[in-house]
Amino acid sequence: MTDLPSSWNDGAAKRSIERFISDADQPGAAFIEPADRIAVFDNDGTLWVEQPLPVQLDFIFRALAKAGQDDPTLAGKEPYKAILARDSAFFAAVGQQQPGAIRALEEALARTWLGSTPEEFEAQVAAYLREVKSERFGLPYPELVYKPMLDLFHVLEANGFRDFVCSGGGRDFMRVIAESAWDIPREHVIGTAPTYTYHDGVIRRGGEVLGGLALGPGKPEHIFAYAGRLPAFAGGNADVDIEMLESAAFAMLIVHDDGEREFAYTAATEKSVAAANDNGWTIVSMKNDWNTVF
Amino acid sequence: MTDLPSSWNDGAAKRSIERFISDADQPGAAFIEPADRIAVFDNDGTLWVEQPLPVQLDFIFRALAKAGQDDPTLAGKEPYKAILARDSAFFAAVGQQQPGAIRALEEALARTWLGSTPEEFEAQVAAYLREVKSERFGLPYPELVYKPMLDLFHVLEANGFRDFVCSGGGRDFMRVIAESAWDIPREHVIGTAPTYTYHDGVIRRGGEVLGGLALGPGKPEHIFAYAGRLPAFAGGNADVDIEMLESAAFAMLIVHDDGEREFAYTAATEKSVAAANDNGWTIVSMKNDWNTVF
Repeated sequence: MTDLPSSWNDGAAKRSIERFISDADQPGAAFIEPADRIAVFDNDGTLWVEQPLPVQLDFIFRALAKAGQDDPTLAGKEPYKAILARDSAFFAAVGQQQPGAIRALEEALARTWLGSTPEEFEAQVAAYLREVKSERFGLPYPELVYKPMLDLFHVLEANGFRDFVCSGGGRDFMRVIAESAWDIPREHVIGTAPTYTYHDGVIRRGGEVLGGLALGPGKPEHIFAYAGRLPAFAGGNADVDIEMLESAAFAMLIVHDDGEREFAYTAATEKSVAAANDNGWTIVSMKNDWNTVF
Repeated sequence: MTDLPSSWNDGAAKRSIERFISDADQPGAAFIEPADRIAVFDNDGTLWVEQPLPVQLDFIFRALAKAGQDDPTLAGKEPYKAILARDSAFFAAVGQQQPGAIRALEEALARTWLGSTPEEFEAQVAAYLREVKSERFGLPYPELVYKPMLDLFHVLEANGFRDFVCSGGGRDFMRVIAESAWDIPREHVIGTAPTYTYHDGVIRRGGEVLGGLALGPGKPEHIFAYAGRLPAFAGGNADVDIEMLESAAFAMLIVHDDGEREFAYTAATEKSVAAANDNGWTIVSMKNDWNTVF
Protein backbone atom coordinates (compact mmCIF):
# COMPACT_ATOMS: atom_id res chain seq x y z
CA MET A 1 0.00 0.00 0.00
CA THR A 2 1.84 3.10 -1.18
CA ASP A 3 -1.13 5.23 -2.30
CA LEU A 4 -1.78 8.39 -0.32
CA PRO A 5 -5.50 8.61 0.59
CA SER A 6 -8.06 11.19 -0.50
CA SER A 7 -6.70 13.95 1.78
CA TRP A 8 -4.14 14.36 -1.04
CA ASN A 9 -5.20 15.61 -4.49
CA ASP A 10 -3.80 13.80 -7.48
CA GLY A 11 -0.83 15.70 -8.92
CA ALA A 12 2.93 15.81 -9.32
CA ALA A 13 3.63 16.09 -5.57
CA LYS A 14 1.45 13.13 -4.60
CA ARG A 15 2.88 10.98 -7.40
CA SER A 16 6.48 11.86 -6.57
CA ILE A 17 6.02 10.94 -2.87
CA GLU A 18 4.27 7.69 -3.76
CA ARG A 19 6.97 6.76 -6.26
CA PHE A 20 9.78 7.30 -3.73
CA ILE A 21 8.04 5.19 -1.08
CA SER A 22 7.16 2.46 -3.55
CA ASP A 23 10.68 2.31 -5.04
CA ALA A 24 12.23 2.20 -1.56
CA ASP A 25 10.48 -1.10 -0.94
CA GLN A 26 11.23 -2.76 -4.32
CA PRO A 27 14.46 -4.40 -5.53
CA GLY A 28 16.34 -1.89 -7.69
CA ALA A 29 18.56 1.17 -7.58
CA ALA A 30 16.16 3.13 -5.34
CA PHE A 31 15.72 0.33 -2.78
CA ILE A 32 16.39 1.43 0.81
CA GLU A 33 17.47 -1.02 3.51
CA PRO A 34 14.69 -1.33 6.12
CA ALA A 35 17.12 -0.22 8.86
CA ASP A 36 17.78 3.02 6.93
CA ARG A 37 14.10 3.93 6.46
CA ILE A 38 14.08 6.99 8.70
CA ALA A 39 11.51 9.69 7.85
CA VAL A 40 11.85 13.02 9.68
CA PHE A 41 9.50 15.99 9.74
CA ASP A 42 9.70 19.49 11.06
CA ASN A 43 6.75 20.35 13.36
CA ASP A 44 5.69 24.04 13.19
CA GLY A 45 4.23 24.77 9.76
CA THR A 46 4.90 21.19 8.61
CA LEU A 47 2.65 19.20 10.97
CA TRP A 48 0.49 21.96 12.44
CA VAL A 49 -0.37 25.65 12.23
CA GLU A 50 2.46 28.09 13.07
CA GLN A 51 0.58 31.40 12.60
CA PRO A 52 0.35 33.99 14.01
CA LEU A 53 3.16 32.56 16.20
CA PRO A 54 4.69 29.10 16.58
CA VAL A 55 2.67 27.37 19.30
CA GLN A 56 5.62 26.88 21.61
CA LEU A 57 6.65 30.52 21.43
CA ASP A 58 3.12 31.40 22.48
CA PHE A 59 3.40 28.91 25.36
CA ILE A 60 6.77 30.33 26.38
CA PHE A 61 5.68 33.97 26.10
CA ARG A 62 2.68 33.30 28.32
CA ALA A 63 4.90 31.63 30.91
CA LEU A 64 7.41 34.49 30.80
CA ALA A 65 4.64 37.11 30.96
CA LYS A 66 3.35 35.41 34.10
CA ALA A 67 6.88 35.28 35.59
CA GLY A 68 7.30 39.00 34.79
CA GLN A 69 3.97 39.86 36.43
CA ASP A 70 4.81 37.78 39.50
CA ASP A 71 8.33 39.18 39.96
CA PRO A 72 8.82 42.97 39.61
CA THR A 73 12.62 42.53 39.45
CA LEU A 74 12.15 40.66 36.16
CA ALA A 75 9.46 42.93 34.69
CA GLY A 76 11.94 45.64 33.69
CA LYS A 77 14.36 43.23 31.98
CA GLU A 78 14.33 41.65 28.52
CA PRO A 79 12.68 39.51 27.37
CA TYR A 80 10.03 40.01 30.08
CA LYS A 81 9.69 43.74 29.36
CA ALA A 82 9.14 43.21 25.62
CA ILE A 83 6.72 40.35 26.21
CA LEU A 84 4.65 42.29 28.76
CA ALA A 85 4.57 45.31 26.41
CA ARG A 86 3.80 43.09 23.37
CA ASP A 87 6.77 44.74 21.65
CA SER A 88 6.55 43.62 18.02
CA ALA A 89 10.20 44.55 17.32
CA PHE A 90 11.33 41.95 19.87
CA PHE A 91 9.07 39.25 18.42
CA ALA A 92 10.39 40.04 14.94
CA ALA A 93 13.97 39.75 16.23
CA VAL A 94 13.16 36.30 17.68
CA GLY A 95 11.53 35.28 14.39
CA GLN A 96 14.69 36.32 12.54
CA GLN A 97 16.80 34.50 15.15
CA GLN A 98 18.85 37.57 16.05
CA PRO A 99 21.48 36.31 18.52
CA GLY A 100 20.78 38.92 21.23
CA ALA A 101 17.05 38.21 21.28
CA ILE A 102 17.57 34.44 21.19
CA ARG A 103 20.08 34.61 24.04
CA ALA A 104 17.76 36.71 26.23
CA LEU A 105 14.99 34.21 25.53
CA GLU A 106 17.18 31.18 26.26
CA GLU A 107 18.35 32.63 29.56
CA ALA A 108 14.77 33.36 30.57
CA LEU A 109 13.71 29.84 29.58
CA ALA A 110 16.50 28.26 31.63
CA ARG A 111 15.51 30.41 34.62
CA THR A 112 11.78 29.67 34.34
CA TRP A 113 11.97 25.88 34.44
CA LEU A 114 15.31 25.29 36.20
CA GLY A 115 14.94 22.45 38.67
CA SER A 116 11.45 21.45 37.54
CA THR A 117 10.63 17.78 37.05
CA PRO A 118 9.31 16.37 33.76
CA GLU A 119 5.94 15.81 35.45
CA GLU A 120 5.67 19.48 36.45
CA PHE A 121 6.63 20.73 32.99
CA GLU A 122 4.39 18.24 31.19
CA ALA A 123 1.39 19.25 33.32
CA GLN A 124 1.89 22.88 32.24
CA VAL A 125 2.14 21.88 28.58
CA ALA A 126 -0.93 19.65 28.80
CA ALA A 127 -2.98 22.45 30.43
CA TYR A 128 -1.88 24.90 27.72
CA LEU A 129 -2.74 22.52 24.90
CA ARG A 130 -6.13 21.78 26.46
CA GLU A 131 -7.13 25.36 27.28
CA VAL A 132 -5.57 27.72 24.74
CA LYS A 133 -7.31 27.99 21.37
CA SER A 134 -6.15 29.31 18.02
CA GLU A 135 -7.86 32.68 17.47
CA ARG A 136 -8.42 31.96 13.80
CA PHE A 137 -9.89 28.47 14.15
CA GLY A 138 -11.29 28.51 17.71
CA LEU A 139 -9.72 25.12 18.40
CA PRO A 140 -6.90 23.86 20.64
CA TYR A 141 -3.69 23.33 18.65
CA PRO A 142 -3.66 19.51 18.82
CA GLU A 143 -6.81 19.68 16.67
CA LEU A 144 -4.93 21.72 14.07
CA VAL A 145 -2.57 18.96 12.96
CA TYR A 146 -2.65 18.57 9.17
CA LYS A 147 -4.63 15.48 8.14
CA PRO A 148 -2.59 14.84 4.93
CA MET A 149 0.59 14.65 7.02
CA LEU A 150 -0.90 12.10 9.42
CA ASP A 151 -1.97 10.10 6.37
CA LEU A 152 1.57 10.34 4.99
CA PHE A 153 2.93 9.08 8.36
CA HIS A 154 0.73 6.00 8.06
CA VAL A 155 1.73 5.25 4.46
CA LEU A 156 5.41 5.58 5.39
CA GLU A 157 4.96 3.24 8.37
CA ALA A 158 3.09 0.73 6.22
CA ASN A 159 6.21 0.63 4.05
CA GLY A 160 8.67 0.05 6.87
CA PHE A 161 9.66 3.66 7.58
CA ARG A 162 10.00 4.93 11.17
CA ASP A 163 8.51 8.43 11.48
CA PHE A 164 10.40 11.02 13.54
CA VAL A 165 9.72 14.68 14.29
CA CYS A 166 12.68 17.10 14.45
CA SER A 167 11.77 20.65 15.38
CA GLY A 168 13.67 23.72 16.47
CA GLY A 169 11.03 23.90 19.19
CA GLY A 170 11.31 22.16 22.53
CA ARG A 171 11.73 18.39 22.42
CA ASP A 172 9.97 17.91 25.74
CA PHE A 173 7.03 20.15 24.81
CA MET A 174 6.39 18.06 21.70
CA ARG A 175 6.84 14.74 23.44
CA VAL A 176 3.66 15.46 25.43
CA ILE A 177 1.61 15.07 22.21
CA ALA A 178 3.76 12.49 20.38
CA GLU A 179 1.53 9.54 21.07
CA SER A 180 -1.86 11.28 21.07
CA ALA A 181 -1.44 13.66 18.11
CA TRP A 182 1.00 11.78 15.86
CA ASP A 183 0.80 8.18 17.07
CA ILE A 184 4.61 7.95 17.29
CA PRO A 185 6.62 7.04 20.41
CA ARG A 186 8.22 9.83 22.45
CA GLU A 187 11.68 8.58 21.61
CA HIS A 188 11.03 9.56 17.98
CA VAL A 189 10.72 13.23 18.90
CA ILE A 190 13.90 15.25 18.41
CA GLY A 191 14.29 18.95 19.16
CA THR A 192 15.96 21.65 21.17
CA ALA A 193 16.29 20.38 24.73
CA PRO A 194 17.66 21.35 28.12
CA THR A 195 20.16 19.33 30.10
CA TYR A 196 18.76 17.23 32.95
CA THR A 197 20.32 16.19 36.23
CA TYR A 198 19.50 12.94 38.01
CA HIS A 199 19.62 12.81 41.78
CA ASP A 200 17.97 10.40 44.23
CA GLY A 201 15.52 8.91 41.76
CA VAL A 202 14.40 12.23 40.28
CA ILE A 203 15.26 13.94 36.97
CA ARG A 204 15.29 17.78 37.07
CA ARG A 205 15.87 20.36 34.37
CA GLY A 206 19.33 21.92 34.24
CA GLY A 207 20.12 25.37 32.92
CA GLU A 208 21.91 24.53 29.66
CA VAL A 209 20.80 23.71 26.12
CA LEU A 210 21.98 20.20 25.21
CA GLY A 211 23.88 20.15 21.90
CA GLY A 212 22.63 23.52 20.63
CA LEU A 213 19.40 24.54 18.90
CA ALA A 214 17.83 22.05 16.49
CA LEU A 215 17.69 24.63 13.69
CA GLY A 216 19.57 24.81 10.38
CA PRO A 217 22.67 22.55 10.58
CA GLY A 218 21.53 21.65 14.11
CA LYS A 219 18.71 19.59 12.60
CA PRO A 220 20.84 16.92 10.87
CA GLU A 221 23.23 17.02 13.85
CA HIS A 222 20.39 16.24 16.26
CA ILE A 223 18.88 13.67 13.88
CA PHE A 224 22.17 11.80 13.63
CA ALA A 225 22.60 11.84 17.42
CA TYR A 226 19.13 10.44 18.12
CA ALA A 227 18.42 8.25 15.09
CA GLY A 228 21.97 7.15 14.28
CA ARG A 229 21.47 7.99 10.62
CA LEU A 230 20.65 10.88 8.36
CA PRO A 231 17.08 10.68 7.04
CA ALA A 232 15.90 8.80 3.97
CA PHE A 233 12.79 11.03 3.77
CA ALA A 234 12.51 14.56 5.17
CA GLY A 235 9.72 17.14 5.19
CA GLY A 236 9.86 20.80 6.17
CA ASN A 237 8.50 24.22 5.30
CA ALA A 238 11.07 26.90 6.13
CA ASP A 239 14.62 28.17 5.73
CA VAL A 240 15.67 26.55 9.03
CA ASP A 241 14.80 23.17 7.47
CA ILE A 242 17.18 23.46 4.49
CA GLU A 243 20.06 21.44 5.97
CA MET A 244 17.74 18.68 7.14
CA LEU A 245 16.14 18.51 3.69
CA GLU A 246 19.48 18.43 1.86
CA SER A 247 20.70 15.62 4.17
CA ALA A 248 17.84 13.33 3.04
CA ALA A 249 17.52 11.04 0.03
CA PHE A 250 14.03 12.48 -0.61
CA ALA A 251 12.97 15.98 0.43
CA MET A 252 9.53 17.55 0.51
CA LEU A 253 8.83 21.25 1.10
CA ILE A 254 5.37 22.44 2.15
CA VAL A 255 4.32 25.85 0.84
CA HIS A 256 1.73 27.86 2.79
CA ASP A 257 -0.30 29.31 -0.07
CA ASP A 258 -3.81 28.70 1.21
CA GLY A 259 -5.09 31.87 2.87
CA GLU A 260 -8.66 30.61 2.72
CA ARG A 261 -8.24 27.32 4.53
CA GLU A 262 -5.06 28.07 6.52
CA PHE A 263 -2.57 30.94 6.03
CA ALA A 264 -0.65 32.33 3.06
CA TYR A 265 2.88 33.54 3.88
CA THR A 266 6.42 33.42 2.54
CA ALA A 267 8.48 35.05 5.34
CA ALA A 268 11.52 32.95 6.37
CA THR A 269 10.77 30.44 3.61
CA GLU A 270 12.19 32.13 0.50
CA LYS A 271 15.59 30.38 0.67
CA SER A 272 13.97 26.99 1.16
CA VAL A 273 11.83 27.46 -1.96
CA ALA A 274 14.92 28.44 -3.95
CA ALA A 275 16.78 25.37 -2.57
CA ALA A 276 13.82 23.14 -3.50
CA ASN A 277 13.93 24.43 -7.07
CA ASP A 278 17.73 24.07 -7.29
CA ASN A 279 17.76 20.54 -5.85
CA GLY A 280 14.59 19.13 -7.39
CA TRP A 281 12.84 18.66 -4.05
CA THR A 282 9.12 17.91 -4.11
CA ILE A 283 7.11 21.08 -3.45
CA VAL A 284 3.72 20.55 -1.81
CA SER A 285 1.18 23.34 -2.27
CA MET A 286 -1.31 23.29 0.58
CA LYS A 287 -3.84 24.92 -1.74
CA ASN A 288 -3.47 22.56 -4.69
CA ASP A 289 -2.10 19.31 -3.30
CA TRP A 290 -4.23 18.94 -0.18
CA ASN A 291 -7.91 18.07 -0.45
CA THR A 292 -8.34 18.39 3.32
CA VAL A 293 -6.20 20.51 5.65
CA PHE A 294 -7.34 19.36 9.12
CA MET B 1 3.97 -15.47 26.08
CA THR B 2 5.88 -14.39 29.17
CA ASP B 3 7.91 -17.54 29.81
CA LEU B 4 11.67 -17.25 29.42
CA PRO B 5 12.99 -20.14 27.30
CA SER B 6 15.38 -22.92 28.29
CA SER B 7 18.48 -20.69 28.30
CA TRP B 8 17.18 -19.70 31.77
CA ASN B 9 17.09 -22.20 34.62
CA ASP B 10 13.98 -22.31 36.75
CA GLY B 11 14.49 -20.34 39.95
CA ALA B 12 13.64 -17.18 41.84
CA ALA B 13 15.28 -14.84 39.27
CA LYS B 14 13.47 -16.34 36.29
CA ARG B 15 10.14 -16.32 38.10
CA SER B 16 10.53 -12.74 39.30
CA ILE B 17 11.32 -11.45 35.79
CA GLU B 18 8.42 -13.41 34.29
CA ARG B 19 6.02 -12.15 36.94
CA PHE B 20 6.96 -8.51 36.33
CA ILE B 21 6.51 -8.82 32.57
CA SER B 22 3.26 -10.72 32.92
CA ASP B 23 1.80 -8.26 35.47
CA ALA B 24 2.79 -5.29 33.29
CA ASP B 25 0.46 -6.55 30.58
CA GLN B 26 -2.53 -7.42 32.80
CA PRO B 27 -5.14 -5.09 34.34
CA GLY B 28 -4.16 -4.42 37.94
CA ALA B 29 -1.85 -2.42 40.17
CA ALA B 30 1.30 -3.53 38.31
CA PHE B 31 -0.07 -2.75 34.83
CA ILE B 32 2.24 -0.51 32.75
CA GLU B 33 0.91 1.70 29.94
CA PRO B 34 2.29 0.41 26.62
CA ALA B 35 3.89 3.82 25.94
CA ASP B 36 5.86 3.50 29.21
CA ARG B 37 7.23 0.01 28.50
CA ILE B 38 10.88 0.99 28.12
CA ALA B 39 13.45 -1.69 28.97
CA VAL B 40 17.09 -0.57 29.18
CA PHE B 41 20.23 -2.65 29.53
CA ASP B 42 23.86 -1.89 30.15
CA ASN B 43 26.15 -3.48 27.54
CA ASP B 44 29.59 -4.52 28.91
CA GLY B 45 29.13 -7.37 31.37
CA THR B 46 25.34 -7.30 30.92
CA LEU B 47 24.98 -8.20 27.24
CA TRP B 48 28.48 -9.47 26.45
CA VAL B 49 31.85 -10.36 27.94
CA GLU B 50 33.80 -7.46 29.54
CA GLN B 51 36.91 -9.38 30.63
CA PRO B 52 39.86 -8.97 30.59
CA LEU B 53 38.91 -5.46 29.37
CA PRO B 54 35.66 -3.90 28.11
CA VAL B 55 35.64 -4.45 24.35
CA GLN B 56 35.55 -0.77 23.49
CA LEU B 57 38.51 0.04 25.72
CA ASP B 58 40.44 -2.63 23.84
CA PHE B 59 39.33 -1.05 20.53
CA ILE B 60 40.33 2.41 21.75
CA PHE B 61 43.67 1.29 23.19
CA ARG B 62 44.59 -0.39 19.90
CA ALA B 63 43.71 2.79 17.98
CA LEU B 64 45.70 4.95 20.41
CA ALA B 65 48.67 2.54 20.32
CA LYS B 66 48.68 2.83 16.54
CA ALA B 67 48.47 6.65 16.75
CA GLY B 68 51.38 6.64 19.24
CA GLN B 69 53.46 4.41 16.96
CA ASP B 70 52.69 6.58 13.93
CA ASP B 71 53.42 9.90 15.64
CA PRO B 72 56.55 10.14 17.85
CA THR B 73 55.33 13.45 19.32
CA LEU B 74 52.43 11.55 20.88
CA ALA B 75 54.38 8.46 21.98
CA GLY B 76 55.90 10.20 25.03
CA LYS B 77 52.58 11.60 26.27
CA GLU B 78 49.76 10.03 28.26
CA PRO B 79 47.70 8.05 27.56
CA TYR B 80 49.81 6.92 24.55
CA LYS B 81 52.89 6.25 26.68
CA ALA B 82 51.03 4.05 29.17
CA ILE B 83 49.20 2.19 26.41
CA LEU B 84 52.39 1.50 24.44
CA ALA B 85 54.10 0.33 27.65
CA ARG B 86 51.04 -1.73 28.71
CA ASP B 87 51.20 0.12 32.04
CA SER B 88 48.77 -1.70 34.29
CA ALA B 89 48.56 1.20 36.77
CA PHE B 90 47.08 3.39 34.04
CA PHE B 91 44.53 0.74 33.03
CA ALA B 92 43.54 0.32 36.67
CA ALA B 93 43.08 4.10 36.99
CA VAL B 94 40.77 4.07 33.94
CA GLY B 95 38.86 1.13 35.38
CA GLN B 96 38.38 3.06 38.62
CA GLN B 97 37.40 6.17 36.63
CA GLN B 98 40.10 8.36 38.13
CA PRO B 99 39.47 11.84 36.70
CA GLY B 100 43.03 12.44 35.45
CA ALA B 101 43.18 9.14 33.56
CA ILE B 102 39.66 9.60 32.14
CA ARG B 103 40.49 13.15 30.99
CA ALA B 104 43.71 12.05 29.25
CA LEU B 105 41.76 9.30 27.53
CA GLU B 106 38.92 11.60 26.48
CA GLU B 107 41.33 14.12 24.99
CA ALA B 108 43.12 11.39 23.08
CA LEU B 109 39.79 10.04 21.81
CA ALA B 110 38.66 13.44 20.63
CA ARG B 111 41.99 13.93 18.83
CA THR B 112 41.99 10.49 17.19
CA TRP B 113 38.61 10.73 15.46
CA LEU B 114 38.13 14.50 15.18
CA GLY B 115 36.68 15.32 11.76
CA SER B 116 36.02 11.70 10.79
CA THR B 117 32.72 10.76 9.17
CA PRO B 118 30.40 8.09 10.61
CA GLU B 119 31.27 5.87 7.63
CA GLU B 120 35.01 6.06 8.40
CA PHE B 121 34.51 5.34 12.10
CA GLU B 122 32.01 2.54 11.48
CA ALA B 123 34.38 0.83 9.03
CA GLN B 124 37.09 0.76 11.73
CA VAL B 125 34.64 -0.67 14.28
CA ALA B 126 33.37 -3.29 11.84
CA ALA B 127 36.95 -4.40 10.99
CA TYR B 128 37.80 -4.66 14.69
CA LEU B 129 34.70 -6.70 15.50
CA ARG B 130 35.37 -9.01 12.55
CA GLU B 131 39.09 -9.53 13.13
CA VAL B 132 39.84 -9.33 16.84
CA LYS B 133 39.06 -12.40 18.93
CA SER B 134 38.65 -12.90 22.65
CA GLU B 135 41.77 -14.70 23.93
CA ARG B 136 39.76 -16.87 26.29
CA PHE B 137 37.09 -17.99 23.81
CA GLY B 138 38.84 -17.62 20.44
CA LEU B 139 35.78 -15.89 19.00
CA PRO B 140 35.01 -12.35 17.81
CA TYR B 141 33.09 -10.39 20.43
CA PRO B 142 29.74 -10.27 18.58
CA GLU B 143 29.65 -14.05 19.08
CA LEU B 144 30.04 -13.56 22.83
CA VAL B 145 26.64 -11.95 23.41
CA TYR B 146 24.77 -13.75 26.21
CA LYS B 147 22.00 -15.95 24.80
CA PRO B 148 19.72 -15.61 27.88
CA MET B 149 19.75 -11.82 27.44
CA LEU B 150 18.76 -12.05 23.78
CA ASP B 151 15.96 -14.38 24.83
CA LEU B 152 14.88 -11.83 27.48
CA PHE B 153 14.86 -9.10 24.79
CA HIS B 154 12.43 -11.18 22.73
CA VAL B 155 10.11 -11.92 25.65
CA LEU B 156 10.03 -8.22 26.56
CA GLU B 157 9.26 -7.26 22.95
CA ALA B 158 6.52 -9.89 22.74
CA ASN B 159 4.91 -8.09 25.68
CA GLY B 160 5.05 -4.63 24.19
CA PHE B 161 8.34 -3.43 25.68
CA ARG B 162 10.87 -1.50 23.56
CA ASP B 163 14.42 -2.71 24.30
CA PHE B 164 17.17 -0.10 24.62
CA VAL B 165 20.87 -0.38 25.42
CA CYS B 166 22.50 2.32 27.59
CA SER B 167 26.23 1.91 28.10
CA GLY B 168 29.01 4.08 29.39
CA GLY B 169 30.83 2.98 26.26
CA GLY B 170 30.56 4.76 22.94
CA ARG B 171 27.09 5.10 21.49
CA ASP B 172 28.37 5.03 17.92
CA PHE B 173 30.58 1.98 18.47
CA MET B 174 27.58 0.00 19.73
CA ARG B 175 25.25 1.21 17.01
CA VAL B 176 27.34 -0.72 14.48
CA ILE B 177 26.10 -3.99 16.01
CA ALA B 178 22.63 -2.90 17.18
CA GLU B 179 20.73 -4.56 14.37
CA SER B 180 22.96 -7.58 13.78
CA ALA B 181 23.80 -8.56 17.38
CA TRP B 182 20.72 -7.42 19.30
CA ASP B 183 18.04 -7.02 16.62
CA ILE B 184 17.15 -3.55 17.89
CA PRO B 185 17.19 -0.32 15.83
CA ARG B 186 20.19 2.02 16.12
CA GLU B 187 18.01 4.73 17.63
CA HIS B 188 17.55 2.48 20.69
CA VAL B 189 21.26 2.62 21.51
CA ILE B 190 22.22 5.22 24.12
CA GLY B 191 25.73 5.89 25.36
CA THR B 192 28.63 8.26 25.69
CA ALA B 193 28.88 10.18 22.43
CA PRO B 194 30.84 12.94 20.74
CA THR B 195 29.35 16.09 19.27
CA TYR B 196 28.90 16.15 15.49
CA THR B 197 29.00 19.02 13.04
CA TYR B 198 27.00 19.12 9.82
CA HIS B 199 28.40 20.94 6.82
CA ASP B 200 27.56 20.59 3.13
CA GLY B 201 25.73 17.30 3.39
CA VAL B 202 28.31 15.61 5.63
CA ILE B 203 28.33 14.86 9.37
CA ARG B 204 31.76 14.92 11.05
CA ARG B 205 32.86 14.19 14.60
CA GLY B 206 33.49 17.20 16.82
CA GLY B 207 35.88 17.28 19.77
CA GLU B 208 33.45 17.41 22.70
CA VAL B 209 31.49 14.82 24.67
CA LEU B 210 27.74 15.46 24.29
CA GLY B 211 25.98 15.66 27.65
CA GLY B 212 28.71 13.94 29.69
CA LEU B 213 29.57 10.28 30.20
CA ALA B 214 26.68 7.79 30.33
CA LEU B 215 27.86 6.39 33.66
CA GLY B 216 26.31 6.56 37.13
CA PRO B 217 23.74 9.41 37.20
CA GLY B 218 24.61 10.03 33.53
CA LYS B 219 22.73 6.82 32.64
CA PRO B 220 19.22 7.94 33.68
CA GLU B 221 20.03 11.43 32.33
CA HIS B 222 20.89 10.00 28.90
CA ILE B 223 17.95 7.58 29.01
CA PHE B 224 15.50 10.41 29.70
CA ALA B 225 17.01 12.51 26.90
CA TYR B 226 16.74 9.74 24.29
CA ALA B 227 13.70 7.74 25.38
CA GLY B 228 11.68 10.55 26.98
CA ARG B 229 11.03 8.44 30.06
CA LEU B 230 12.86 6.66 32.83
CA PRO B 231 12.86 2.89 32.34
CA ALA B 232 10.18 0.45 33.42
CA PHE B 233 12.72 -2.40 33.32
CA ALA B 234 16.50 -2.04 33.71
CA GLY B 235 19.36 -4.53 33.73
CA GLY B 236 22.99 -3.97 34.68
CA ASN B 237 25.95 -5.60 36.38
CA ALA B 238 28.16 -2.95 37.98
CA ASP B 239 28.41 0.02 40.34
CA VAL B 240 28.10 2.47 37.41
CA ASP B 241 24.62 1.00 36.76
CA ILE B 242 23.18 1.75 40.22
CA GLU B 243 21.41 5.01 39.30
CA MET B 244 19.89 3.48 36.15
CA LEU B 245 18.66 0.49 38.16
CA GLU B 246 17.17 2.63 40.94
CA SER B 247 15.36 4.78 38.34
CA ALA B 248 13.44 1.73 37.01
CA ALA B 249 10.24 0.09 38.22
CA PHE B 250 11.98 -3.30 37.97
CA ALA B 251 15.73 -3.79 38.30
CA MET B 252 17.86 -6.83 37.57
CA LEU B 253 21.54 -7.21 38.49
CA ILE B 254 23.73 -9.82 36.80
CA VAL B 255 26.46 -11.37 38.95
CA HIS B 256 29.55 -12.80 37.27
CA ASP B 257 30.08 -15.91 39.37
CA ASP B 258 30.78 -18.46 36.65
CA GLY B 259 34.54 -18.84 36.25
CA GLU B 260 34.08 -22.09 34.35
CA ARG B 261 31.80 -20.89 31.58
CA GLU B 262 32.66 -17.15 31.64
CA PHE B 263 34.49 -15.17 34.35
CA ALA B 264 34.13 -14.82 38.13
CA TYR B 265 34.82 -11.31 39.46
CA THR B 266 33.44 -8.77 41.91
CA ALA B 267 35.62 -5.67 41.28
CA ALA B 268 33.56 -2.48 40.73
CA THR B 269 30.35 -4.39 41.47
CA GLU B 270 30.29 -4.54 45.29
CA LYS B 271 28.11 -1.45 45.74
CA SER B 272 25.62 -2.64 43.14
CA VAL B 273 25.21 -5.97 44.96
CA ALA B 274 24.63 -4.11 48.24
CA ALA B 275 22.09 -1.83 46.51
CA ALA B 276 20.33 -4.86 45.03
CA ASN B 277 20.00 -6.41 48.48
CA ASP B 278 18.82 -3.12 50.01
CA ASN B 279 16.25 -2.43 47.30
CA GLY B 280 15.01 -5.94 46.58
CA TRP B 281 16.31 -5.97 43.01
CA THR B 282 16.39 -9.30 41.20
CA ILE B 283 19.88 -10.81 41.31
CA VAL B 284 20.78 -13.08 38.40
CA SER B 285 23.58 -15.55 39.00
CA MET B 286 25.20 -16.50 35.70
CA LYS B 287 26.22 -19.81 37.25
CA ASN B 288 22.85 -20.81 38.66
CA ASP B 289 20.24 -18.93 36.63
CA TRP B 290 21.61 -19.41 33.13
CA ASN B 291 21.47 -22.80 31.45
CA THR B 292 23.38 -21.48 28.45
CA VAL B 293 25.79 -18.52 28.43
CA PHE B 294 26.41 -17.93 24.69
